[in-house]
Amino acid sequence: MTSLPSRTGQGRSGTLPHSAFRERYLAVRALTLELVETLNEADAAAQSMPDASPAKWHLAHTTWFFETFLLRDQVPGYRLYDERWPFLFNSYYEAEGARLPRPDRGLLTRPTLAEVIDYRRRVDEAMVAVLPQLVERHGDLLELGIQHEQQHQELLLTDIKHLFALNPLGPVYRVKGEGEGPATAAPMHWIEGAQGRVDAGYDGPDFAFDNEQPMHSTWLAPHALASRPVTNGEWIEFMLDKGYETATLWLSDGLDWARREGVASPLYWRGEGREWEHFTLAGWLPVDPESPVTHISFYEAEAFAAWAGCRLPTEQEWEAAARDHDPGAGVQLDHAAPVMPRAEHGADRFTSLFGNVWEWTGSAYRPWPGFQTAPGAVGEYNGKFMSGQFVLKGGSCATPRGHLRASYRNFFHPHQRWQFTGLRLARSM
Amino acid sequence: MTSLPSRTGQGRSGTLPHSAFRERYLAVRALTLELVETLNEADAAAQSMPDASPAKWHLAHTTWFFETFLLRDQVPGYRLYDERWPFLFNSYYEAEGARLPRPDRGLLTRPTLAEVIDYRRRVDEAMVAVLPQLVERHGDLLELGIQHEQQHQELLLTDIKHLFALNPLGPVYRVKGEGEGPATAAPMHWIEGAQGRVDAGYDGPDFAFDNEQPMHSTWLAPHALASRPVTNGEWIEFMLDKGYETATLWLSDGLDWARREGVASPLYWRGEGREWEHFTLAGWLPVDPESPVTHISFYEAEAFAAWAGCRLPTEQEWEAAARDHDPGAGVQLDHAAPVMPRAEHGADRFTSLFGNVWEWTGSAYRPWPGFQTAPGAVGEYNGKFMSGQFVLKGGSCATPRGHLRASYRNFFHPHQRWQFTGLRLARSM
Amino acid sequence: MTSLPSRTGQGRSGTLPHSAFRERYLAVRALTLELVETLNEADAAAQSMPDASPAKWHLAHTTWFFETFLLRDQVPGYRLYDERWPFLFNSYYEAEGARLPRPDRGLLTRPTLAEVIDYRRRVDEAMVAVLPQLVERHGDLLELGIQHEQQHQELLLTDIKHLFALNPLGPVYRVKGEGEGPATAAPMHWIEGAQGRVDAGYDGPDFAFDNEQPMHSTWLAPHALASRPVTNGEWIEFMLDKGYETATLWLSDGLDWARREGVASPLYWRGEGREWEHFTLAGWLPVDPESPVTHISFYEAEAFAAWAGCRLPTEQEWEAAARDHDPGAGVQLDHAAPVMPRAEHGADRFTSLFGNVWEWTGSAYRPWPGFQTAPGAVGEYNGKFMSGQFVLKGGSCATPRGHLRASYRNFFHPHQRWQFTGLRLARSM
Amino acid sequence: MTSLPSRTGQGRSGTLPHSAFRERYLAVRALTLELVETLNEADAAAQSMPDASPAKWHLAHTTWFFETFLLRDQVPGYRLYDERWPFLFNSYYEAEGARLPRPDRGLLTRPTLAEVIDYRRRVDEAMVAVLPQLVERHGDLLELGIQHEQQHQELLLTDIKHLFALNPLGPVYRVKGEGEGPATAAPMHWIEGAQGRVDAGYDGPDFAFDNEQPMHSTWLAPHALASRPVTNGEWIEFMLDKGYETATLWLSDGLDWARREGVASPLYWRGEGREWEHFTLAGWLPVDPESPVTHISFYEAEAFAAWAGCRLPTEQEWEAAARDHDPGAGVQLDHAAPVMPRAEHGADRFTSLFGNVWEWTGSAYRPWPGFQTAPGAVGEYNGKFMSGQFVLKGGSCATPRGHLRASYRNFFHPHQRWQFTGLRLARSM
Repeated sequence: MTSLPSRTGQGRSGTLPHSAFRERYLAVRALTLELVETLNEADAAAQSMPDASPAKWHLAHTTWFFETFLLRDQVPGYRLYDERWPFLFNSYYEAEGARLPRPDRGLLTRPTLAEVIDYRRRVDEAMVAVLPQLVERHGDLLELGIQHEQQHQELLLTDIKHLFALNPLGPVYRVKGEGEGPATAAPMHWIEGAQGRVDAGYDGPDFAFDNEQPMHSTWLAPHALASRPVTNGEWIEFMLDKGYETATLWLSDGLDWARREGVASPLYWRGEGREWEHFTLAGWLPVDPESPVTHISFYEAEAFAAWAGCRLPTEQEWEAAARDHDPGAGVQLDHAAPVMPRAEHGADRFTSLFGNVWEWTGSAYRPWPGFQTAPGAVGEYNGKFMSGQFVLKGGSCATPRGHLRASYRNFFHPHQRWQFTGLRLARSM
Repeated sequence: MTSLPSRTGQGRSGTLPHSAFRERYLAVRALTLELVETLNEADAAAQSMPDASPAKWHLAHTTWFFETFLLRDQVPGYRLYDERWPFLFNSYYEAEGARLPRPDRGLLTRPTLAEVIDYRRRVDEAMVAVLPQLVERHGDLLELGIQHEQQHQELLLTDIKHLFALNPLGPVYRVKGEGEGPATAAPMHWIEGAQGRVDAGYDGPDFAFDNEQPMHSTWLAPHALASRPVTNGEWIEFMLDKGYETATLWLSDGLDWARREGVASPLYWRGEGREWEHFTLAGWLPVDPESPVTHISFYEAEAFAAWAGCRLPTEQEWEAAARDHDPGAGVQLDHAAPVMPRAEHGADRFTSLFGNVWEWTGSAYRPWPGFQTAPGAVGEYNGKFMSGQFVLKGGSCATPRGHLRASYRNFFHPHQRWQFTGLRLARSM
Repeated sequence: MTSLPSRTGQGRSGTLPHSAFRERYLAVRALTLELVETLNEADAAAQSMPDASPAKWHLAHTTWFFETFLLRDQVPGYRLYDERWPFLFNSYYEAEGARLPRPDRGLLTRPTLAEVIDYRRRVDEAMVAVLPQLVERHGDLLELGIQHEQQHQELLLTDIKHLFALNPLGPVYRVKGEGEGPATAAPMHWIEGAQGRVDAGYDGPDFAFDNEQPMHSTWLAPHALASRPVTNGEWIEFMLDKGYETATLWLSDGLDWARREGVASPLYWRGEGREWEHFTLAGWLPVDPESPVTHISFYEAEAFAAWAGCRLPTEQEWEAAARDHDPGAGVQLDHAAPVMPRAEHGADRFTSLFGNVWEWTGSAYRPWPGFQTAPGAVGEYNGKFMSGQFVLKGGSCATPRGHLRASYRNFFHPHQRWQFTGLRLARSM
Repeated sequence: MTSLPSRTGQGRSGTLPHSAFRERYLAVRALTLELVETLNEADAAAQSMPDASPAKWHLAHTTWFFETFLLRDQVPGYRLYDERWPFLFNSYYEAEGARLPRPDRGLLTRPTLAEVIDYRRRVDEAMVAVLPQLVERHGDLLELGIQHEQQHQELLLTDIKHLFALNPLGPVYRVKGEGEGPATAAPMHWIEGAQGRVDAGYDGPDFAFDNEQPMHSTWLAPHALASRPVTNGEWIEFMLDKGYETATLWLSDGLDWARREGVASPLYWRGEGREWEHFTLAGWLPVDPESPVTHISFYEAEAFAAWAGCRLPTEQEWEAAARDHDPGAGVQLDHAAPVMPRAEHGADRFTSLFGNVWEWTGSAYRPWPGFQTAPGAVGEYNGKFMSGQFVLKGGSCATPRGHLRASYRNFFHPHQRWQFTGLRLARSM
């Protein structure tokens, strides 16, 4: 989950005063630290599966990004904090040389959390010192670093959740606060989508990742989208109707996956019949039938849609529907908290387009017509992942507010479900 | 590689006289037998990998298809040839019940080849006896059975090739005949494609698989396609330029695959520098630099295209270009022979759109807007494979002539390359 | 299952007339061919698991042994039948160079069975022509070749049985003849064994493998052996008493194996309660409660012995008990037949010491004190397998009569059970 | 590496005054805590491979042993520290019910290190309070708990070493102190061993594990043992002579293992030719040619012995040689330190029989004649591991002084080498 700066965004950095940039940079950096406040040294170092990374690694990797592509590459005379660390904290940039194999990140009990926090402090000091000139000359890269860190904030939360869920003691990341909003889901209705020639992708003055570009035309057939995501209660009906056991509802790969892994409910659920609880960042809680279902794979989403006599939306359909909605609204990450999806009533015709749960689309993650990767290491940000994955739209309760757009393309493999993933139904007309 | 009958094709069967149908049925059935003439009992029973099937299994499975969906389901009073055989020869139809695990097909040294041929004879007799009424009432299913058998003819050839290639003695399937056609590839030039709103998919009176339907509109950005497929000689340039070792040319999954499997040339190649030979159905032969390259994976095709500064065509671009060309022209399968791609000069502006090699497109295999699976077991023909695979177009030297259309959608996983796969370059404009 | 010639056996070859040697050579060679008479070309080429080999491969490998170590190495001017074949038919002799990976033996649909039989014929002709001089100068190697072929006769039968057992049609290798002998097992009683200093290993004028040598002293504690092997009926009691589910009866590795593989009965059994049938070389038959149990792993044998409050004998205890018994008596292989263990009443105090089933001992397969491997490739016959395996004694219904001795050491991994393996109980006193 | 109390040891506990027992109990418990003093919370929680366990887990598991088998089982009214913890800290006792899968121990970032230390403190308090009565009635179990903890002290050190070795920063567990003792290895000479009837196993008034019992007779053939272990310098000669590449020196399983894992030197070595450094508890250091070689597998030990024209001693030979030597002498663990083998000159004819490195024997780990497991869960201590492993003798630099005996039987799988394993040569005469 990553990307290149808008090639059209140069003008943007000129429009923001330096002080505003500084404030935003420091706010984003501070939120990351806030997210690990309740973790001990071991929590921060453990890796619960190869797909996940330790919290400490997220802290260091996001810092490595600024140190490498801004300080090292753009600031003459800068000396690395520690020359051995790039090997540890490069994620997947082939152009940046050899690196620690991903499944070994959990072995890094050293450097310590304190050392990594010191690393962050020093890099922040260096960054702030040169921020005015960076904003001027490398505003795109700087913005990319900030956006990159926001992406890792979400990953950090989902990775911690995965780790804690595997602990038989079920540790609580943070205690849940008082509920807010409606106790019931908005009623579901169908909303007809745009037809014919419709534009997709980003073309504007603000930041967007390379994979959202260029803007281009697409042709939509008649269709409708559900007004809100599928709820836990609806998912329980699917389960009670033997949805997991009915082979003909499933993609062949999905059926193999579910059988091999023994999947018979969303991730983190335990129970039976109509009685379920699920693991959350606030520990084990009863499943709320009114909240959007989450932690489901693409395979499960497809099977549910088939069971409901519907299908998943394409990403173009979803984007066309969301274009005029406020991407900063809804259930998103504002500060460190045990985020989780919750029942919501939309201000608009649609409910929870942005926030709450990432919505699986039926679209494989492939390049837009005319897509180009940037030269250099940051060109590896998005393009090289364009096989075997599906697009998700709209962000989740763990996405930092301010990070999203209608054209934003998230992507995961069809079996992955440790993110806050959900679905919204669609149908052809 | 499989599919449902056109839901619009009912009229078609009425237009063909029964005798023509009978002739075609028998001709297709005869060609399958002809393909195994040079195999001994062991050749016909061996399975060289889980992806491949024994030739004897292909003989029986295609027969099982007619016996099950036509004779058993549609002909009152029909008695199965052997009640134990459906378990052996059902491929993947969940609705048809339990079946032999795919990787175990090579254990079926019994029934013998002679018994399977007897099975074919008896089913053919039963089919011919009721063909007039089947044509009338179940023409679609009958046509589907014939098309299905043609698909397995191609698989039978590629599976035998794979088996023989692994044998250190390099057995010859059939001796190569005298060459024909040009010794040199047609020169490559760019041909601009249609732009804007263009239809894709099939909507006509003849047979088409369910995955080609419905016809629908799509919007094409400005682009051009290469006039002919990439040749072996061009591939050797890629290799000499360290294409296989240059990480930045590759999709991330592709790089992992190539490193893990030690892939450094097309499948079946051995040699170095400019000197290569490859295994063919006629045994080990020198690689002809003028012929289309084949036995490459999607990952390799993408890396080559990146190296060439181009990209793969989308399936919509490919289909738009091919719509007005004769799908029955070019290097295709007419009778049992050591088929292999060869240099060709197109009658049209394009060379080898149909035949020679299946061309990888950059399009993931997903349903067309409005796609629906048929009820019952045959509904499992195509739809359930719509994840994790990519579309290939245009057929190969091993595709039976008469089987192809511009809208035809073949699909394989991105690492698979034992089919006659190749590529044609495209670029955005 | 393999070995080196006796270093003390030189005198032996001088004592046998050449004509006797010739007769024996031809008889053994003929029996191997007889064993494949009922197999078709595919049966003979298939490999049902990496542990097993195709019958055709056994035919060729045993021939390769004579061709390599006798004709090629000892007969000046001999020309190989085919220079490419040693790569195919060398089993595991590192000193003989590269070879086909073991799991790929099933890919050898060529050379054909007829070609391999022709290979046998030609090598036999060459052997017979030089037999007098070979007997004189290389009697040990010649004898080793014959013994080696006898070992492969047993493997050939167990490998065919494994292949046919996996075929849902349950093919019959040969129809079972009329029964003979008692319908009931001999009653079981305890027989006290020798105590104190006892010799083990071979030291005599006849052939013995290197791993049986040298003869040496060992010290036996007071103990008793069961008079006969454990029967199927006794095994059913173990199963009814939840022997497979009682963790504390099992070795830790054995429990892991049984759980991972889902093992809950001997190999080839199906049924429940007291009603079981098992797959035999004569097809599926009811399990006879009076016959010795077979196709059990070392792990299962240990668990059964623990359940019975006993233990397995050590190989030294077994050998001491068997020393004075006739190794040529009992249920052994005389000619091609659907061999299987059967209830037997011993002529002696012991029943079925030799023949019927290989008896697992509690002894890990390690060298006798003073053991030495021979120089050259045949030195790889036994010694390099002396880790991770356990010793079995006494031969089985599939061991060619005349092949056994009290000092004979067979060995398999503790999870392997496709051989005719069984057990005899022991206890300390 | 584990075991049952001596069934003859009941008298022993009566002979020690309670105060001496208390002192010893507290000293052993204190040493364990001392071993983790330099670890941070993350170091203590990480698991570097399934064979290893986190230090924190060792702290808790040894405590669980006392809490379960002494306090819970023998002290009426005792309440568990936390009822959920037995699931976390049971190692492999089937009789004690379900438990956390071994490879998941690294996920236990909670309970915290402080909580586990509190657990130790509370259990120690409870133990001390009832120690007099425990000594009287359950002295064997109490002693077993102490011995068990000593075993885990060694494992804790080798597991930490493994974790730190995988960290690219090469953390130092503790800084190395000043060297002591000779800079050169004692010269190697051969010492003839006892012949004929010799006793093995333990039969005395003190503690011994069940697997050392009963004492029994064995018969030894003429042989000699090397006066000291093989050194690093000698191992380098083996490597320079292509020992790792010479197939005929290796056991078949060993060769497969070495090829599959790419093994070409002892574990933790890096370098080439005569220049090597190795990872130690004091970080990366040059390999000292005079010190005993360590971190080698049984397979490597066998290959080295074959290369040297020798063999490994049997455990009976080793035990007979060691019987009259002081098991408390030599390089063993006295307090937390970066323990490592070092060159030593023996006081006796033998050097380093005890301490320095565990010496692989050629004996598979199987029960002594008359061996019996104890009833109940502690009966799972040793017996169920008696397949697939080899015996090691003599202890290492990481074995707590006072823990060893000549009859002590350690055991590991032939490929394992993260313990301080080495070898001493033997030969038959």
